[in-house]
Amino acid sequence: MHNYSQAASSRKLRAGRKFRVGLLGYTGYSGAELAGLLERHPAVAPVLLDHREVDGSVANFQPVPCGELRSRPLSHARWSATAVAENNLEAVLTATPPEISIAMIPQVLAQGARAIDLSGAFRLSADQYRRWYGNEHAHPELLRQAVYGLPELYREQIRTACLVANPGCYPTAAICALWPLLQHDWVDRAAGVVCDAKSGVTGAGKNPSPKTHFVQVSENFSAYAILRHRHVPEVLNSVGLEESEFAFTAHLLPMQRGILATHYLRLKRAAKMGEVLDLYRSAYGEARFIRLYPEGSQPQLSLVNGTNFCDIHCTLGQDGKRLVVVSCIDNLVKGAAGQAVQNMNLMFGLDEAEGLLETGAKEQGS
Amino acid sequence: MHNYSQAASSRKLRAGRKFRVGLLGYTGYSGAELAGLLERHPAVAPVLLDHREVDGSVANFQPVPCGELRSRPLSHARWSATAVAENNLEAVLTATPPEISIAMIPQVLAQGARAIDLSGAFRLSADQYRRWYGNEHAHPELLRQAVYGLPELYREQIRTACLVANPGCYPTAAICALWPLLQHDWVDRAAGVVCDAKSGVTGAGKNPSPKTHFVQVSENFSAYAILRHRHVPEVLNSVGLEESEFAFTAHLLPMQRGILATHYLRLKRAAKMGEVLDLYRSAYGEARFIRLYPEGSQPQLSLVNGTNFCDIHCTLGQDGKRLVVVSCIDNLVKGAAGQAVQNMNLMFGLDEAEGLLETGAKEQGS
Amino acid sequence: MHNYSQAASSRKLRAGRKFRVGLLGYTGYSGAELAGLLERHPAVAPVLLDHREVDGSVANFQPVPCGELRSRPLSHARWSATAVAENNLEAVLTATPPEISIAMIPQVLAQGARAIDLSGAFRLSADQYRRWYGNEHAHPELLRQAVYGLPELYREQIRTACLVANPGCYPTAAICALWPLLQHDWVDRAAGVVCDAKSGVTGAGKNPSPKTHFVQVSENFSAYAILRHRHVPEVLNSVGLEESEFAFTAHLLPMQRGILATHYLRLKRAAKMGEVLDLYRSAYGEARFIRLYPEGSQPQLSLVNGTNFCDIHCTLGQDGKRLVVVSCIDNLVKGAAGQAVQNMNLMFGLDEAEGLLETGAKEQGS
Amino acid sequence: MHNYSQAASSRKLRAGRKFRVGLLGYTGYSGAELAGLLERHPAVAPVLLDHREVDGSVANFQPVPCGELRSRPLSHARWSATAVAENNLEAVLTATPPEISIAMIPQVLAQGARAIDLSGAFRLSADQYRRWYGNEHAHPELLRQAVYGLPELYREQIRTACLVANPGCYPTAAICALWPLLQHDWVDRAAGVVCDAKSGVTGAGKNPSPKTHFVQVSENFSAYAILRHRHVPEVLNSVGLEESEFAFTAHLLPMQRGILATHYLRLKRAAKMGEVLDLYRSAYGEARFIRLYPEGSQPQLSLVNGTNFCDIHCTLGQDGKRLVVVSCIDNLVKGAAGQAVQNMNLMFGLDEAEGLLETGAKEQGS
Repeated sequence: MHNYSQAASSRKLRAGRKFRVGLLGYTGYSGAELAGLLERHPAVAPVLLDHREVDGSVANFQPVPCGELRSRPLSHARWSATAVAENNLEAVLTATPPEISIAMIPQVLAQGARAIDLSGAFRLSADQYRRWYGNEHAHPELLRQAVYGLPELYREQIRTACLVANPGCYPTAAICALWPLLQHDWVDRAAGVVCDAKSGVTGAGKNPSPKTHFVQVSENFSAYAILRHRHVPEVLNSVGLEESEFAFTAHLLPMQRGILATHYLRLKRAAKMGEVLDLYRSAYGEARFIRLYPEGSQPQLSLVNGTNFCDIHCTLGQDGKRLVVVSCIDNLVKGAAGQAVQNMNLMFGLDEAEGLLETGAKEQGS
Repeated sequence: MHNYSQAASSRKLRAGRKFRVGLLGYTGYSGAELAGLLERHPAVAPVLLDHREVDGSVANFQPVPCGELRSRPLSHARWSATAVAENNLEAVLTATPPEISIAMIPQVLAQGARAIDLSGAFRLSADQYRRWYGNEHAHPELLRQAVYGLPELYREQIRTACLVANPGCYPTAAICALWPLLQHDWVDRAAGVVCDAKSGVTGAGKNPSPKTHFVQVSENFSAYAILRHRHVPEVLNSVGLEESEFAFTAHLLPMQRGILATHYLRLKRAAKMGEVLDLYRSAYGEARFIRLYPEGSQPQLSLVNGTNFCDIHCTLGQDGKRLVVVSCIDNLVKGAAGQAVQNMNLMFGLDEAEGLLETGAKEQGS
Repeated sequence: MHNYSQAASSRKLRAGRKFRVGLLGYTGYSGAELAGLLERHPAVAPVLLDHREVDGSVANFQPVPCGELRSRPLSHARWSATAVAENNLEAVLTATPPEISIAMIPQVLAQGARAIDLSGAFRLSADQYRRWYGNEHAHPELLRQAVYGLPELYREQIRTACLVANPGCYPTAAICALWPLLQHDWVDRAAGVVCDAKSGVTGAGKNPSPKTHFVQVSENFSAYAILRHRHVPEVLNSVGLEESEFAFTAHLLPMQRGILATHYLRLKRAAKMGEVLDLYRSAYGEARFIRLYPEGSQPQLSLVNGTNFCDIHCTLGQDGKRLVVVSCIDNLVKGAAGQAVQNMNLMFGLDEAEGLLETGAKEQGS
Repeated sequence: MHNYSQAASSRKLRAGRKFRVGLLGYTGYSGAELAGLLERHPAVAPVLLDHREVDGSVANFQPVPCGELRSRPLSHARWSATAVAENNLEAVLTATPPEISIAMIPQVLAQGARAIDLSGAFRLSADQYRRWYGNEHAHPELLRQAVYGLPELYREQIRTACLVANPGCYPTAAICALWPLLQHDWVDRAAGVVCDAKSGVTGAGKNPSPKTHFVQVSENFSAYAILRHRHVPEVLNSVGLEESEFAFTAHLLPMQRGILATHYLRLKRAAKMGEVLDLYRSAYGEARFIRLYPEGSQPQLSLVNGTNFCDIHCTLGQDGKRLVVVSCIDNLVKGAAGQAVQNMNLMFGLDEAEGLLETGAKEQGS
């Protein structure tokens, strides 16, 4: 029967020096996805950090005692103020609620490790945080130091950052779709920019609630946080829009994964489709995980789910000004865990795509 | 065991005079829904009209020989040029492809019956039809005579119409959401109006194709017909927008039924939420099937699926000008069969809601 | 817009004398289904009974404040020890947890009303209850008096019962499939009888838990309570099998409704298919809600969901002895609320099918 | 943006000598899964073989022109009678309909390559084939030479086989569950063995039909091929049961992947749970892809989907004789493509699990 040591030894054979990386928070959807990506990453030796407040409380979330079913053993260590040194960690990734991240990250940095936080704790200014998260930020000095971890925009800053704030899932989809157009001032801001975003249920978290009950979600579809989502300021910060120029609505899809966001805007000057695609190609020349849909194709989530890609699809109106941009990501990969690995790769000087192309993602067609 | 005659006789007992109504095309999703509504309608004696071109070819769509499982017998008759007279029909409803409707409806009208067509055959002008359906309309004289069957806007004209063009599913959702605002000239047209619409799979029809295969649809979500849907001109005709002022995208949801459409627009003058709701209440004073969501609630399809209601939800931005209007319908009921019954009720002088409130729809809460 | 009083008055017009029926527990899936059936029942005036322990605690289960969306007003009253008299109730239906039913039903009976309980509180003997529910039954005297509410087997006793124990959903499917064969002693008991049952998620209840989270249930399928389900003794009691002769496994389907149970057994003597079907037809001669599948058809849940029918499908092996019987029900209708209405109809001397054939259920084919 | 050559070169760097393997039939579900596994296999250089009859006809199955979205280029070659030599292929895998496999495999073998066929063409005796597939086998001599490719039973024969008949998906689940018990003669055959199997929709193939339409499948569940499935003889051949001793029913689940099969049988002598588990452990000592569920756990498909594992769960009745064995596999991996790779690994003298543990499968818990 399945023999754990064989698998473990075959992994060691193909490894050179490995970076020791801690993961705090591995039972939520993003954290579990991240644990899997780190396990399969050829240049990383991951350590799952157990913390009473984080992982102990959610033990009952595991539907089955499936430890014996795992194909590979996982390294575990207790989290503590000295865990970084004891475990020789070069980086700690935190997939924890914002208040826990704010408490833990200073300890990580103080011990000399670098940090990537997947929560919303370090993405905004202190003022924005107060307004959208409803309380005062306990470590505003870290907000100034944190780099927003969207490699397609901030690759160089990420390489040398000590603290990376991994972007929200909706902002990743929106910023990747809008940034080239706004950066080059093609957009008629007076007409406003609309982002109509739809997400799978993993985006709502693992905590059981009436809103995530199968019977409530299946054969249903709803809009929520209309014009009031806390992810909005992240988008504005990155693309340089005013709040009054941007309308955002979130929707809940009856499926597990993926965000498809449909953007509506007007160009300042009439353009041809080729020019629009060239703008994107030029803006994302270095970006390994941006793919452009060819004309005539149909954007859809099944082509990105399980991958770290952000797929972008553009449609121009007859007047050459009305533009619809659809972006698709897997909210748990490019929208969370995959992007964290991408950031980690940059911080370690590795190939940006290391461990992210062999994800076993379904690739249709040929 | 189940005794068919008992059920049939108990139905007769509570019936007075009944209108004899023919249904041509009862095997597609809309047609089957309509057959069910007509069967349960207390004032109607339905006759299913069998036509080689329509129903014979799709016999293999029925997954099981479940005739013996039906709880009630259905009346059938052969369609022919004299079927109206032979069966004493006062109206014929057609849930057939446009080209079949165009061929059959003149025969229905010539025999003195009134007609309600659920296809797109009679909804547009001859010019629009040529452009969006790709061929010349064979009976343009009927286009001038046809009444667009959206009772909330055209109730009086429907009462006396001989030919009613039942609206498309997307246009029903869009027009109900936008009409009050545009009719009263509240909308800043220069900023444009966006309709981001999402539909369940029944909207794509019963014909098996790679696009409707379970494995393609489930755990997937896609955008299609971006800025190019043939339902657009119906909306423009009814709400009085120019094509350049309106952006429409359709999406396919991994669920069976329902359309949720999210509309984005700017008001000419800043308004308060109460004023917006009052505008809708006033515009839809007579409308039995429009419901307004209270503030703070979350629009969703499960509350309309199985009913003939169109639910409307408004959110106003902080500036009092940005407005998001979400409308929800069941695409097969208010978006097709239910609206056809509503039109039929008006044409027969019945209560507009007859046979449409007892649909067994799931109503949550209390 | 939707006018509540019109709908209410049109209902009154067609009603004669109505039975006043209380419903305690209307927020769970079975209770909500029952509330809907009672509302649409032509001979019943339902009163929803509010009880702190039952309905107050689950107010937060309602995902939206959709009271304003209802098409009909509902009658409410406070539950109390004098609620029956105050509200002039002839019967009280309880869709409450067993321990609440055991506390309330004696009060209902003491006030002179008849009772139908949808929980497992009154279905077993005192000994069985102790073993399968884990505690002593507080009112064993009521167990002797309670009639098991499966009309297909106990129609006459139900007519005059004061307390009816509405069967469990799995037992309804299993007993309807097995009873004719066992009653006539056709089954080789030594070979054992297998019931492999699969249920939709509403069978697991409305309480949010990791097991009912959308992400856990969708794209998943599991077996549970293997050889240990508390519904087993109900089946044994009704069909007369020993525990050692019966193997039962429950499974959770990634869908909302329906139970399909596949039964495997050996006949004592080789039979022909026609003989088997005749046995069922003869056993269920009076039964309005049993339907037999014709040979060559494929049993499936979509044909019973939304209805009170139990559909039965038989396949005989080449030896004429191996028999597979598939039964299908909607777990919330024939498996709970619909069967309760069927029992109520019998208790009131109404047509057994009153209010149960006009459910708007999807009937495919023709 | 995504740069194809980088990905390709990084793959080459970590490869040593690679086996050249052809794949005929890569557009069906099993074939596409196999293409993905071969692409990611560290010891294989795959070549997709294009054949008019196989791949050309299904070009329209691809819902989008997503060639540009692929992260890696794929090697293609035309299939012909000399394709093996021209492309230097050591093995050819065929995921084609049985009649195509029967026509192609002799050409593959004649050119000196070894073959693994995923269809049902070479799994039965000539007599069985005639009965269950309805026509005479064109190459009965190959049936005698073909090895049944279930490594857990026939590992040594597979290593040296020229032609491996990859097992059906249902038989894989059934044989893995039953073989240890039958091999050691623990089963009371007179009481019969039941296999109640449930499969996801990919098992029904990619061909669009009314039976695989999303609206037919979702919120539905059905039984089919009751006592008449053509996979039955494969099971009987491997476990040594007579047809009269085995009852098999297939069911269609509203999900994409996975087979869960629930088996019911009686042991000849009463046993303890530990003895049963020991029997399985001993029988599957060498088997890398068999996992046993611990007691008290709940078998489910989400734990095997995306992996090559067959998970087995046993429950013993109170009498120590009644045994329920649940087995779970991913029908496209262990039930098709993954098992083919497992067989290929054995034929090439590689580690049996090479390329099959890094599949990116979701592993829950820790």
